[in-house]
Amino acid sequence: MGDDAALFLPRRGYDTVLTCDWFLEGTHFLRGKHPPDSVGWKCLARAVSDVAAMGGEPKCFLLSLALPERATGKWLDHFLAGLRRAQRLLHCPLAGGDTTRRREILISVTVVGEVPARRAVLRSGARPGDILFVSGRLGEAARGLQLLLRGKRTQRSPDLRALRKHLYPEPRLALAQWLSGRGLATAVMDLSDGLSSDLPRLCAASHVGAVIETAKIPAVRIDDLNRDGAKSAPLALALNGGDDYELLFTVHPASARRMPRSFQGLPLTRIGEITRTRSLRLIGLDGREQAIVPAGWDPFRS
Amino acid sequence: MGDDAALFLPRRGYDTVLTCDWFLEGTHFLRGKHPPDSVGWKCLARAVSDVAAMGGEPKCFLLSLALPERATGKWLDHFLAGLRRAQRLLHCPLAGGDTTRRREILISVTVVGEVPARRAVLRSGARPGDILFVSGRLGEAARGLQLLLRGKRTQRSPDLRALRKHLYPEPRLALAQWLSGRGLATAVMDLSDGLSSDLPRLCAASHVGAVIETAKIPAVRIDDLNRDGAKSAPLALALNGGDDYELLFTVHPASARRMPRSFQGLPLTRIGEITRTRSLRLIGLDGREQAIVPAGWDPFRS
Repeated sequence: MGDDAALFLPRRGYDTVLTCDWFLEGTHFLRGKHPPDSVGWKCLARAVSDVAAMGGEPKCFLLSLALPERATGKWLDHFLAGLRRAQRLLHCPLAGGDTTRRREILISVTVVGEVPARRAVLRSGARPGDILFVSGRLGEAARGLQLLLRGKRTQRSPDLRALRKHLYPEPRLALAQWLSGRGLATAVMDLSDGLSSDLPRLCAASHVGAVIETAKIPAVRIDDLNRDGAKSAPLALALNGGDDYELLFTVHPASARRMPRSFQGLPLTRIGEITRTRSLRLIGLDGREQAIVPAGWDPFRS
Repeated sequence: MGDDAALFLPRRGYDTVLTCDWFLEGTHFLRGKHPPDSVGWKCLARAVSDVAAMGGEPKCFLLSLALPERATGKWLDHFLAGLRRAQRLLHCPLAGGDTTRRREILISVTVVGEVPARRAVLRSGARPGDILFVSGRLGEAARGLQLLLRGKRTQRSPDLRALRKHLYPEPRLALAQWLSGRGLATAVMDLSDGLSSDLPRLCAASHVGAVIETAKIPAVRIDDLNRDGAKSAPLALALNGGDDYELLFTVHPASARRMPRSFQGLPLTRIGEITRTRSLRLIGLDGREQAIVPAGWDPFRS
């Protein structure tokens, strides 16, 4: 810090993992809605999630921050408090950065991580017959965003859980390292944009297709379905909601039989299978098949 | 590429150098004035310059890019052409990145480099009695910006040179590696914001002061001084003009005697000396001393 660049001493026997992630006011968060400590937490957590998805361990990060004058006081203090909490929890200290002034708050985070040499788990390793798993419950973060935008205080425990997951997501570092350390997963990625958008990416990288079952998708729990109507139906949120940062991974059928139902309290759910046919299909509750259409978060579509 | 994160295989016996740099429309470039291939070239070149300043060699970079719809066609093509030219010249391939849509063009570049273990040259190594050097001519890039903003075509060779330096700066990689490889420099930094702003940073990091001589500063050459008036006087540009990406470095007096006047055609000029007194002084042409006041590029001042 203070020098032109930061120095990082790589360990022998490890590869370096690099990732960068935008976190922009108006695009990824709203200054009037998202508490600044959540912005600080989340900008680091989501970048670390990309390192986690490869079975890596975060080592340090660089922060590019652009701020308006009026966000340099209290806003910045709370932002840094959230960022520091994430640094501690994720064992990922700040190594350097660049700051400038700007009308809107702009953040770009680069995380440097390590993975044992030649042990990185890629998106491209899924093979026909492999079993598809996800961790946690999908759509919770999107549900949390709905609640945040609605702005009503809630005391219901599934709502609080959803809000917390949207504001303070926790990258699945321990699970990813367990999967890669035991050689269990053939491919892994983190669900940042929603299952319907991310599954096609994993399949494209692996040159395979997939079939998943609606009945098996561990969707967010919503108590007040009547009030929210169809738009917030759990399945739609689970398929198309972003920001969950759960893991989507594939396991060889022989290993799949030995997979536990949960890891450190986090449910691991078998949702489908990888196919040779390169189509992406969803089997409905009525047994009918439909194509999976990417409808998750995509800044270039909306 | 295509995976959550990029993999980088560090070489044994090398430390990793990391740096990130904003390059924002309206702050660092103007879409209507700067050719897109210059934006592509410069966003990488200036980040590489930070790696160069530590005696490092760039290895790869990550690109965070946010673009409006209307810049995704021709603008993007030319941007990428300039970026690719810089990648080739600087031996620094693209390893990954993040893209999103945005009203304005936002760029953040992270460069990963290598430096032989424990051989990085820092800003903090300057000692009283060390001789201060700069490479090249200072203020050329600022002069180039003036010409660009004025928008008049020019055929004068110093003007073309200044324009080129503003649009397509070349980080001083070879010089920096020569200085660090021979153990010649005690401290090095690149001049990105202007001598009057950057010299105080080097001195603060080293806990020293400095005295420099006006007569020795290698300032930009300007032919049409009368027309431009005092504002563009060469000395003011040399002291306060940013974007030169020349090197400011300090050399032990014993080594200074052996310093050549140029390196691969690039002038190396002795401009002053490091002092124990922590003041920063400029000796004028009339022999009078004045304090050096930081007046270079500073996004938080203007």
